[in-house]
Amino acid sequence: MAEVVFELLHLELVSRLRAGGEAGAGEPERGKCISTLEGMGFRAGQGLIERFTKESPSFKDELDVMKFICKEFWTNLFRKQIDNLRTNHQGTYVLQDNRFRLLTPISNGKQYLEEAPKFLAFTCGLLRGALSNLGIDSAVTAEVSALPACKFHIVIQAS
Amino acid sequence: MAEVVFELLHLELVSRLRAGGEAGAGEPERGKCISTLEGMGFRAGQGLIERFTKESPSFKDELDVMKFICKEFWTNLFRKQIDNLRTNHQGTYVLQDNRFRLLTPISNGKQYLEEAPKFLAFTCGLLRGALSNLGIDSAVTAEVSALPACKFHIVIQAS
Repeated sequence: MAEVVFELLHLELVSRLRAGGEAGAGEPERGKCISTLEGMGFRAGQGLIERFTKESPSFKDELDVMKFICKEFWTNLFRKQIDNLRTNHQGTYVLQDNRFRLLTPISNGKQYLEEAPKFLAFTCGLLRGALSNLGIDSAVTAEVSALPACKFHIVIQAS
Repeated sequence: MAEVVFELLHLELVSRLRAGGEAGAGEPERGKCISTLEGMGFRAGQGLIERFTKESPSFKDELDVMKFICKEFWTNLFRKQIDNLRTNHQGTYVLQDNRFRLLTPISNGKQYLEEAPKFLAFTCGLLRGALSNLGIDSAVTAEVSALPACKFHIVIQAS
């Protein structure tokens, strides 16, 4: 049930913040709403991974970290694994979820497609925060073509 | 882990909203912050109980509902039961949690005591929303004397 309260709280948060970032509102407001959600996700991701990896073995390499994110991390938060993980072996990873749970509230019609970025910003931050705490700096963006499927693009930043 | 993300998200939410309701700010701002959190909790509570009681047997009476809230509902959200339930058998219930999880972030010092209402407003709403969806109108307030213990007072509204 905690998963459900997480989903409901996330929905409340998005609804509340989007009031300031409606389609009618200017680009600056929409950007601010998204960056607020991303920042909240970032801090939550840091806290989460800290507690979650306390008793985990250390990771072999970057790919090992990504596999952990796709399986354990994702399953615990979203009750399913990432469906597909791809990498170019040069620091770019694409995580595909064919039925992303946080998109469920807007998955009933195509008209919501432009709302999608607001529903993904928190999770982009979550990924960036989790990786950051494992010593990996990254840029994370999301891509949606057909709801409720989506892809998260992670680009590792050279340090 | 979903419990943890719920706690972290709740903390983010409180931090964000309290910026508008600092001790320095006037009473109206503090009241607004608390009522926003309460409202978000209310809607989350309605959604939660709806999914959570889908396959549950119906309840015998009001006390039966309260016992369910103290055990199943609380355990699923906060990883422990309510420690003590009291009632005057006239529509007032007092739920005591001796170690309330959402108060953990401010349980390191007495100086935070006046911050406590902001950390409890969401849960007051959660209770009111859950009860409301089960057909029980109520007023819910919280009381803290020694962190992280707290009491939730539920007063049933005659219909």
